[in-house]
Amino acid sequence: MTTVAIAHLGPPGTYSEQAALAYVSWLHQETGQQATLCPYPTIAQSLRAVAQGKADVAVVPVENSIEGSVAMTLDMLWQLDTLQIQQAVVLPIANALLARAQSLNSIHTVYSHPQPLAQCQRWLEKFLPDVRLIATNSTTEALQRLEQDSLAGAIASERASQLYNVPILANEINDYPDNCTRFWVVRQGEFQTSGYTSSTEGSHTSLAFSVRANVPGALVKPLQVFAGRSINLSRIESRPSKRSLGDYLFFIDLEGDTNSAPVQSALAELTAYTEILKIFGSYNLLPISY
Amino acid sequence: MTTVAIAHLGPPGTYSEQAALAYVSWLHQETGQQATLCPYPTIAQSLRAVAQGKADVAVVPVENSIEGSVAMTLDMLWQLDTLQIQQAVVLPIANALLARAQSLNSIHTVYSHPQPLAQCQRWLEKFLPDVRLIATNSTTEALQRLEQDSLAGAIASERASQLYNVPILANEINDYPDNCTRFWVVRQGEFQTSGYTSSTEGSHTSLAFSVRANVPGALVKPLQVFAGRSINLSRIESRPSKRSLGDYLFFIDLEGDTNSAPVQSALAELTAYTEILKIFGSYNLLPISY
Repeated sequence: MTTVAIAHLGPPGTYSEQAALAYVSWLHQETGQQATLCPYPTIAQSLRAVAQGKADVAVVPVENSIEGSVAMTLDMLWQLDTLQIQQAVVLPIANALLARAQSLNSIHTVYSHPQPLAQCQRWLEKFLPDVRLIATNSTTEALQRLEQDSLAGAIASERASQLYNVPILANEINDYPDNCTRFWVVRQGEFQTSGYTSSTEGSHTSLAFSVRANVPGALVKPLQVFAGRSINLSRIESRPSKRSLGDYLFFIDLEGDTNSAPVQSALAELTAYTEILKIFGSYNLLPISY
Repeated sequence: MTTVAIAHLGPPGTYSEQAALAYVSWLHQETGQQATLCPYPTIAQSLRAVAQGKADVAVVPVENSIEGSVAMTLDMLWQLDTLQIQQAVVLPIANALLARAQSLNSIHTVYSHPQPLAQCQRWLEKFLPDVRLIATNSTTEALQRLEQDSLAGAIASERASQLYNVPILANEINDYPDNCTRFWVVRQGEFQTSGYTSSTEGSHTSLAFSVRANVPGALVKPLQVFAGRSINLSRIESRPSKRSLGDYLFFIDLEGDTNSAPVQSALAELTAYTEILKIFGSYNLLPISY
């Protein structure tokens, strides 16, 4: 039995690694397969590793309940063109301020990934109003910065505190208690835009499309395709097409399986109203209890 | 005649200041009014200044053609509750790498606001693959960092290069040539959710709403309200409600004026399908030629 190589945003200690570990333990339980984790410095590089066959799957963040979509993940999925979603993983996020300093008063800089910085902005404004906030590629990279700066803190997880042996100066500093991040487990896969059948089944299907620019009502028709069949959209997200202002791609998560009759018929009709349509597959939420 | 106080993301030299200056010259030409610019360190603070009556209007970025929405602006507009959009301004963005170093080889760190960093990511990967990228609150703050670090560069505008007397080491480093940012000119204003009439008229209307969580089809109905009247949505953006994952606010820009019959009737019907509805007003695009 082969070992599955799992790309994720690293170094070890990131929330992406935690999501990857949850997937690994589910995979082992279901199939008996072993896995190795492959940390990459950016989300883009983790996804490219799968597209280039250097890793079997990537576990990447899609959206956070406070800060919203991870633009990099959506943009790369559209660009790379051959990736399919296999699973979704939802991870509760508990941010902590890690520092070697003895008190909050001595902290003058806080490092973290832009998402945790944004998730804790009110706490930071209240307790550390004068600190300099510096964005890093990952929460773990933020921790590495502390080595050169004893008056700095990093926002990261409890697990990272243990892994890197940096004490927690303040715990549960999220502005909102129900802070979760949804990840996708993504693999290489062929997809067709019509007559599509997914090799996996699932409660949710994700897709993205562009519409012909500057056509009035361009978005109305695609949405009516789903509304007319009472297919619920659990998420709709616009991203710039990068062609011109006001020209968008739409990313949609819908409740239903690509192999079900209403979804099949919706996807077939959708091709008439979209310019480019990419279907990223059907998948279930990984059952994990915390 | 009173002087209009205009809040914007500062310090002087930011793209927000450029958009504010475009608004000032239009205002002067139309009404003869004078204006003073009030730079604030964050977008949130510029908007709060208007909500608290410390400034008359704020000029804030809404979306960029490459990087998409400015989450902070949307979230604050929803939270502050009493702001109305008066105008839209579209500014072409030409990013340059500013540095006192003589060549790209000697640059080891690049500072900028996260949006320009993202707009130039391919250029950075190609020409400066090993530099450390550090996010700042504004492009101008990035320039200030150069004072302490002669081996660093900042991504900012040509205007900032002149204002701060820092040479341009590389020009037009955007990954995509048609890089534009849309700004909103926002003022204090009362709004009602029904029987709404806007004091301003315009080609576009912006609004946001939440839907009752976990109701299947919750988004379908509001969208049908517009589709059924052939009202085109020029933009739809979901933001997390910050209550729980999968629970969204929707921000919509539509083509039409709140005082027109179809928009009035759509807004009246919309209240039946939304939980909270906030209408940010009707406005035109500022006519500026560059």
